[in-house]
Amino acid sequence: MISFTCDYNEGAHPLILSRLQETNLMQEPGYGEDRFTASAKEKIRKATGCSQADIFFLTGGTQTNSTVIDSLLHAYEGVVAVQTGHIAVHESGAIEASGHKVITLPQHGGKMSAEELRLMLEKFYSDPSWQHMVIPGMVYLSYPTEYGTVYTKDELLSIHRICKDFHIPLYIDGARLAYGLAASSLTLQEFAGLCDVFYIGGTKVGALCGEAVVFPRGNAPQHFFTLQKQHGAVMAKGRLLGIQFDTLFTDNLYLQLGRHGVETANKMKEVFIERHIPFYLESPTNQQFPILTSRQMKILNGKVAYEIWDTLADDRCVCRFATSWATTEEQIYQLSQILNY
Amino acid sequence: MISFTCDYNEGAHPLILSRLQETNLMQEPGYGEDRFTASAKEKIRKATGCSQADIFFLTGGTQTNSTVIDSLLHAYEGVVAVQTGHIAVHESGAIEASGHKVITLPQHGGKMSAEELRLMLEKFYSDPSWQHMVIPGMVYLSYPTEYGTVYTKDELLSIHRICKDFHIPLYIDGARLAYGLAASSLTLQEFAGLCDVFYIGGTKVGALCGEAVVFPRGNAPQHFFTLQKQHGAVMAKGRLLGIQFDTLFTDNLYLQLGRHGVETANKMKEVFIERHIPFYLESPTNQQFPILTSRQMKILNGKVAYEIWDTLADDRCVCRFATSWATTEEQIYQLSQILNY
Amino acid sequence: MISFTCDYNEGAHPLILSRLQETNLMQEPGYGEDRFTASAKEKIRKATGCSQADIFFLTGGTQTNSTVIDSLLHAYEGVVAVQTGHIAVHESGAIEASGHKVITLPQHGGKMSAEELRLMLEKFYSDPSWQHMVIPGMVYLSYPTEYGTVYTKDELLSIHRICKDFHIPLYIDGARLAYGLAASSLTLQEFAGLCDVFYIGGTKVGALCGEAVVFPRGNAPQHFFTLQKQHGAVMAKGRLLGIQFDTLFTDNLYLQLGRHGVETANKMKEVFIERHIPFYLESPTNQQFPILTSRQMKILNGKVAYEIWDTLADDRCVCRFATSWATTEEQIYQLSQILNY
Amino acid sequence: MISFTCDYNEGAHPLILSRLQETNLMQEPGYGEDRFTASAKEKIRKATGCSQADIFFLTGGTQTNSTVIDSLLHAYEGVVAVQTGHIAVHESGAIEASGHKVITLPQHGGKMSAEELRLMLEKFYSDPSWQHMVIPGMVYLSYPTEYGTVYTKDELLSIHRICKDFHIPLYIDGARLAYGLAASSLTLQEFAGLCDVFYIGGTKVGALCGEAVVFPRGNAPQHFFTLQKQHGAVMAKGRLLGIQFDTLFTDNLYLQLGRHGVETANKMKEVFIERHIPFYLESPTNQQFPILTSRQMKILNGKVAYEIWDTLADDRCVCRFATSWATTEEQIYQLSQILNY
Repeated sequence: MISFTCDYNEGAHPLILSRLQETNLMQEPGYGEDRFTASAKEKIRKATGCSQADIFFLTGGTQTNSTVIDSLLHAYEGVVAVQTGHIAVHESGAIEASGHKVITLPQHGGKMSAEELRLMLEKFYSDPSWQHMVIPGMVYLSYPTEYGTVYTKDELLSIHRICKDFHIPLYIDGARLAYGLAASSLTLQEFAGLCDVFYIGGTKVGALCGEAVVFPRGNAPQHFFTLQKQHGAVMAKGRLLGIQFDTLFTDNLYLQLGRHGVETANKMKEVFIERHIPFYLESPTNQQFPILTSRQMKILNGKVAYEIWDTLADDRCVCRFATSWATTEEQIYQLSQILNY
Repeated sequence: MISFTCDYNEGAHPLILSRLQETNLMQEPGYGEDRFTASAKEKIRKATGCSQADIFFLTGGTQTNSTVIDSLLHAYEGVVAVQTGHIAVHESGAIEASGHKVITLPQHGGKMSAEELRLMLEKFYSDPSWQHMVIPGMVYLSYPTEYGTVYTKDELLSIHRICKDFHIPLYIDGARLAYGLAASSLTLQEFAGLCDVFYIGGTKVGALCGEAVVFPRGNAPQHFFTLQKQHGAVMAKGRLLGIQFDTLFTDNLYLQLGRHGVETANKMKEVFIERHIPFYLESPTNQQFPILTSRQMKILNGKVAYEIWDTLADDRCVCRFATSWATTEEQIYQLSQILNY
Repeated sequence: MISFTCDYNEGAHPLILSRLQETNLMQEPGYGEDRFTASAKEKIRKATGCSQADIFFLTGGTQTNSTVIDSLLHAYEGVVAVQTGHIAVHESGAIEASGHKVITLPQHGGKMSAEELRLMLEKFYSDPSWQHMVIPGMVYLSYPTEYGTVYTKDELLSIHRICKDFHIPLYIDGARLAYGLAASSLTLQEFAGLCDVFYIGGTKVGALCGEAVVFPRGNAPQHFFTLQKQHGAVMAKGRLLGIQFDTLFTDNLYLQLGRHGVETANKMKEVFIERHIPFYLESPTNQQFPILTSRQMKILNGKVAYEIWDTLADDRCVCRFATSWATTEEQIYQLSQILNY
Repeated sequence: MISFTCDYNEGAHPLILSRLQETNLMQEPGYGEDRFTASAKEKIRKATGCSQADIFFLTGGTQTNSTVIDSLLHAYEGVVAVQTGHIAVHESGAIEASGHKVITLPQHGGKMSAEELRLMLEKFYSDPSWQHMVIPGMVYLSYPTEYGTVYTKDELLSIHRICKDFHIPLYIDGARLAYGLAASSLTLQEFAGLCDVFYIGGTKVGALCGEAVVFPRGNAPQHFFTLQKQHGAVMAKGRLLGIQFDTLFTDNLYLQLGRHGVETANKMKEVFIERHIPFYLESPTNQQFPILTSRQMKILNGKVAYEIWDTLADDRCVCRFATSWATTEEQIYQLSQILNY
């Protein structure tokens, strides 16, 4: 059986494993004080064009979101996200567990509308009882979104402008950043200038685990490390994260893996289009949402794994097929062959 | 330079790396639903003799402690620990961040006194204003302790008995469990019967990361997984933890690595004893606390790394030298040679 | 100027003040151990027909909601409420501050739909990733709602039934309970049987402060007092709350004050109806929502105070006029006279 | 039976009740926007000599402590207090519930030693692993302490100086401030200059409830009101607090009640001294700690109520006898007569 259920079905990119092997018995200090971590940070500063960036390595997405958000909010503040935002739905209340409300806006193909954001903020401060309400203290986006869509440069600029007007930071969840960049004309450097903090997702782009939080202008809040520790988000063997990101940011591997994921997704898209299978929405990245009939699902049964997102009134299902850095042409070909029946 | 600063200076045991390599491109589901994790759980159930055990894999110690403790306490309860307990000192307030007080007792060589525990609990409930105070809701020990010492079977029995009398669970932090067992006559099976939940530390015993929480009698609180996710303690690629523990619990590797750590510690101990270097306390495990003079420290300077724990009135220092699964006889020999000057 | 801005514009019912005066120098223990509190509890048990009820007195609504909700939820659970529920909007994130998400449903005239509740719960548990989401742990309603509307007996029965089916408690916020009961055919006894915990609001019905939490079947969670203390919700001079509720539950004063508020509201309603002023929605309780033109608002300016809730597209405003236990016929007459201009 | 168990056994000073009566039906806005609250703030600004002070009224001590402390700490910070500090013992973990550790120092007659504070802070920052620990973010004292003792001006100056050196605020819990000032040569104005925030306790000095938080130099953290609301610490009928503090700060009533409490305590002290009853410690304020024999306790039994704090090895008990603004000479005389038997 081949699986397109997600982009974390395999282990790590082979170069990462080799590097772990090579460095295995070198003695290095813990908690990210090792030389691999230092080197990874330097390479990320170069790749993002942010020579002053503060960088921290954490293990996974939920942990990263809850640590970053907690580090930027006062106790009386909440974070603004779309209703389908990862923090609003799939983190078991990690944000609320650190005391903060997720203030939701409607989603449009997974994206936040700049206009709706501005209206909400204006309405908030014009409400005579705003002091009795959770104060919007930051904005959270994901790039690409949970639906695989990507914000345009103009959309990010507008949202960032609104955040500046209201003196709140913009945080971008880049769990799949490489796939987003591969599907857009934005460079990583440009991207880094369009927000106040973001993370570069490793887990879904070839690492065993790991996310790199970047405060692009050296703007990390004081004592971020201590808060990271408090969130259980510091690895004793920080080298594991350092080595992985050092590898991912050597010879542009990270961006290259992103391109591979998008290229294979495009090929997979062709497979569906050729068979007149419609899509729930147009996604330019590694997650695709074909709408399958029960007959089609029966054909795939036991041969191809994928996720079911929703059941439509006519019994067809919105499905998610994800490619990744590890997807092979052979797997796409097999999918195509199976669907031929 | 050779380092004895801690037991997480190196990567992973070579068998773990090979296993990661071998399994790397096998497609498996995420979040611990993979076959490696299932196999690891089965092997741990066998090794602990707890066929009904509920087992969860987390990434690091602080994360594990705060998740387990939060899962067992009501909002109005605190956890009892000794003043030097890891949760009381070195977790940046992770326990308090989830709303719970760490109620402290004095330490004796890092250990809790059963008698003092009983007295505290009795005094608590006889205080007329106990309802205005944090209710002791569980007991936390570490085995071995932060000072490398280990509880005897009788000590554990007494403490567990008191916990039962007061209807509160006993939780044992086994970050270095393998070293503790190697230094004691307790078997892992006996150990598992002496508490209500414990974790088997991987990070400090040959894994890149990972701790296995064991509820020995299938007594995990409901929805532990959801709470784990909320604490940012679920790995998308759960296989990373599954593969590591599957390897550690194949052919007794875990206990064997513990024995190796203690054997090299004993050899290191000899090196100090031969030079009439006294110890701050008697530790039977992989952490040793020699008291060094400034002259001795000068000799080691730049050649051997270790931790300074405290400065005594006469300017001598209590130092920590840790061996591990990775320590070689050659490293001990070098230490001995350097100290000869 | 007369004010209809809210139902807490005045002090306390005169009988409460006299009783405070009479008892002022009697020495009584603190923290609710006084005889007035004991008597108030007994009277509430009688009035609700719940001889086994556990009763606690707290100071205000937000405090009561956050304490009760925190006492009933596990760390991984959230509370279900409508989007306009007090806890979802006007409590500055008090629920999230204790770690819990407010899971929202649409509102219909301020009310929750039983059907939508059931669908949401069913959908939740059929979602394959439900373990990655906040588990719905209880349902919160307000009676009357923030829009002055009241649930029918059948509506409450349906919602309570669903809660039972999913093994979660139903909590009703009765900040204005007396006004709700006065507008309905439900008795306090029947009401008490339709949920698992509720509070009887004092602040808005003639007390200086104070809300009485009732667990009708002796079903208070263990150590509720300690949690109450932790929430800063225990008064040292508990007598202040005891005396007030003892007075409110003597000779049916509480229900009588509710009827007075609704009767004066009905007279006020007539004033608007006679002038063809429409209402935003039909409310049977002490809060009325007339839609005023800017001309009408100009007439009232400086003479009558009220709250503006929303501005409509045609520049008319949805306004809130609240009567209370303290509203006089004279005040209604004056409003009517002023509107005649 | 007469009671000396605490200073909150009675209702309120008669002038407060009269003022509540007089103002009862005046319509005023809620949430502290009323004219009484405004007037009370102005009077407190005058009495403290702090014309720029930010002032907030809350209901009780635990609530006030947890709100103020939460408003001043970052998520990674804790509050330093002595082991017997109210926040460390008798607030059911309210500080921890908002995520913060109480870092304890030894007490000396209930007081913190400036020297021990400085040593602790110096040691903290010289510990190589300080970033893994809770960062001391503020200092909490009570004046008078839980043992009735008072800091001298020099002691407060020293502690405040250390706080400034480490850039952390000093917060003083003045639950019984009036009794402390009456027993010292410090004026309220001087006191206000010796810390960064304090509260003026009403509950224990003649109010039904209420504490006034004073940020003497207009230094309240932003959005304190919203945080207060989140802590359930905003009264809808804020007038109740405003009227009480307006009365207490008219014609020096507050300080006068403090003096009355101390004068009656001094007379009570005489009663014990004349009978050669020793004291556990020397307290100059309204709480006295005589050590009674079981014979003496038998004599008092059923006639005089007081608190038992501790049982000594010889079966004698450390007892607490508190006077207050309400204690009469007649009550002291009765105590004296009863002890004559």
